[in-house]
Amino acid sequence: MNAAVTDSPAPRPAQQPAPPGGSSGEAPIVTIADIEAAAVRLAGVAWRTPLLSSEALDAAVGGRLLIKAEPLQRTGSFKFRGACNTIAQLPPGPVVAYSSGNHAQGVALAARLAGREATIIMPSDAPAIKQANTERLGATLVLYDRHSEDREAIGAEIAARTGAHLVKPYDDPRIIAGQGTVGLEMAEDVRAMGIVPDAAIVCCGGGGLIAGTATALCHAFSEIAVFSAEPLGFDDTARSLLSGVREGNVPGAVSICDALLAPMPGELTLAVNRRLLAGGLVVDDAAVLDAMRRAFLELKVVVEPGGAVALAAALSGALDCRGKTVLVVLSGGNVDPTRFREALDSARQRS
Amino acid sequence: MNAAVTDSPAPRPAQQPAPPGGSSGEAPIVTIADIEAAAVRLAGVAWRTPLLSSEALDAAVGGRLLIKAEPLQRTGSFKFRGACNTIAQLPPGPVVAYSSGNHAQGVALAARLAGREATIIMPSDAPAIKQANTERLGATLVLYDRHSEDREAIGAEIAARTGAHLVKPYDDPRIIAGQGTVGLEMAEDVRAMGIVPDAAIVCCGGGGLIAGTATALCHAFSEIAVFSAEPLGFDDTARSLLSGVREGNVPGAVSICDALLAPMPGELTLAVNRRLLAGGLVVDDAAVLDAMRRAFLELKVVVEPGGAVALAAALSGALDCRGKTVLVVLSGGNVDPTRFREALDSARQRS
Repeated sequence: MNAAVTDSPAPRPAQQPAPPGGSSGEAPIVTIADIEAAAVRLAGVAWRTPLLSSEALDAAVGGRLLIKAEPLQRTGSFKFRGACNTIAQLPPGPVVAYSSGNHAQGVALAARLAGREATIIMPSDAPAIKQANTERLGATLVLYDRHSEDREAIGAEIAARTGAHLVKPYDDPRIIAGQGTVGLEMAEDVRAMGIVPDAAIVCCGGGGLIAGTATALCHAFSEIAVFSAEPLGFDDTARSLLSGVREGNVPGAVSICDALLAPMPGELTLAVNRRLLAGGLVVDDAAVLDAMRRAFLELKVVVEPGGAVALAAALSGALDCRGKTVLVVLSGGNVDPTRFREALDSARQRS
Repeated sequence: MNAAVTDSPAPRPAQQPAPPGGSSGEAPIVTIADIEAAAVRLAGVAWRTPLLSSEALDAAVGGRLLIKAEPLQRTGSFKFRGACNTIAQLPPGPVVAYSSGNHAQGVALAARLAGREATIIMPSDAPAIKQANTERLGATLVLYDRHSEDREAIGAEIAARTGAHLVKPYDDPRIIAGQGTVGLEMAEDVRAMGIVPDAAIVCCGGGGLIAGTATALCHAFSEIAVFSAEPLGFDDTARSLLSGVREGNVPGAVSICDALLAPMPGELTLAVNRRLLAGGLVVDDAAVLDAMRRAFLELKVVVEPGGAVALAAALSGALDCRGKTVLVVLSGGNVDPTRFREALDSARQRS
């Protein structure tokens, strides 16, 4: 699969040792056919979100940004896609998931649409909007302490006790394929515009969104350079891409990007991402708040901190976009009003 | 034209005396063919904005809302559509326009794309974001005092002195046809979903957007009831629909809906709207702020006060949407951060 990608010498580091599961000699973790099959499952269920642009943002970066607006997706983030694609392939029965919030909402709605009960394990410090929305979607909420409890263990215990199927947040080929429909739609849209993009920047927590999106984009555009974007202190994927093994984040780091606080890359997602990504970009909280403000002013889209890191990477110059056409994913918009006011206030200080 | 509409007995008040220019015996002001021709001119120039929905908003009204997101349009409002359609049909030369802000930005960008110079006459109390964006788009700004000066006279003087073509904000068949592409796209989208909407609510200042949109929607759906939505104190169209003649607003009224402060309906727009509309809805500023907050929370779209009145009419119960499928137009998103914070603060008080 994807011969156009593996045949392409640059800019991907083809000289890296082949990672497990991603080498050309083994079965790929996720294929373009898996993503196309996910798109069929999602048709009429998940929304096809628009690709936005802004002359002001283009002028700011000296290039052209084409911006995928996943905050407009059902449940306010891309997570609904992977949840739907996974649940559609599960045997009958209830589901359980652990999530900082967006996967929770995606699973809750996907389960309800499929007529299944859902239990969601969520950190007690997750944004109130995400807790409330998850309950509103009909799921049972189980809160845990992010610092002293292990959400994976809690999930496994509930699964063993109730027979519920665990819907992982990212390290599952069905999740990766579902999130990959983001890339599939972007590829279709830019092709229809007659555009060949130079690069793409995708928000990265556990790496499911970017693994699927990169699979679709690299299949469509053999020369595209796909970059992950992460918050400072949670740059585990950037460091793992450099070292070649899964690197964890330093304990005690803090970030406003609540959606991107996974402790380390997934095993499957890193295998895909090592093969396909051109590198990892890192942005600080100030750049994130500025990107949220610019999305408010220029795109009229509400973006949460974790959903804004890719745009922040473009606007802060973490990726030099001058003279380039760059795809940017806004991955979610579930942000408490208090946090959003902080982004608007950063506007007042700067403008 | 539009026989299906005039043949329909209800809910439009067919028993009203035929207004000038809109009676079945005279040439219609704007036809569906005019709107379709506008759509051809706008293809690839104006964006096709998405039709959004939210289970939470549907639950709140007890019906189904399908929400057109024109804040995502170029320049942040629908006004770009009418400006493009009009300027494309003008003889060569510069253009001039008077506007509280959104028409200004629409004309500025449409003129620049057409290689024309633009002068914009704007009230000195228009939101800073609208003034700044208009200048950023390359137009020359002329500020005037809303209470003591006549913008139409200033526009006519500049047109006479410089030979510039006046691009009216609403009372022009080319403007109405351009804005009507909002309705055309909505009709196409809901038809593709197999839906026949019961009603539509459209924000109304001078009445150009709703005149064009109603023309397209009533052509597509013979039974649809189209309602205007206006802010309290600026309900000139609602009262004009009742009296049958153009009613002005009472001087001294204030509203946060800066985009909807036209002094009275247009002559042409009222002629169209008297024939097609089912009635006029009125909402207060508190309902508008609440609608902005709900659009933030549930749709992830930034909406300005004037752009939120139609959604406010649905959410406040000004139109009873129970058991109905209702199209709602969000018409623009050019709002200063200070005003938007006010909407978020109203959230804190309510939630």
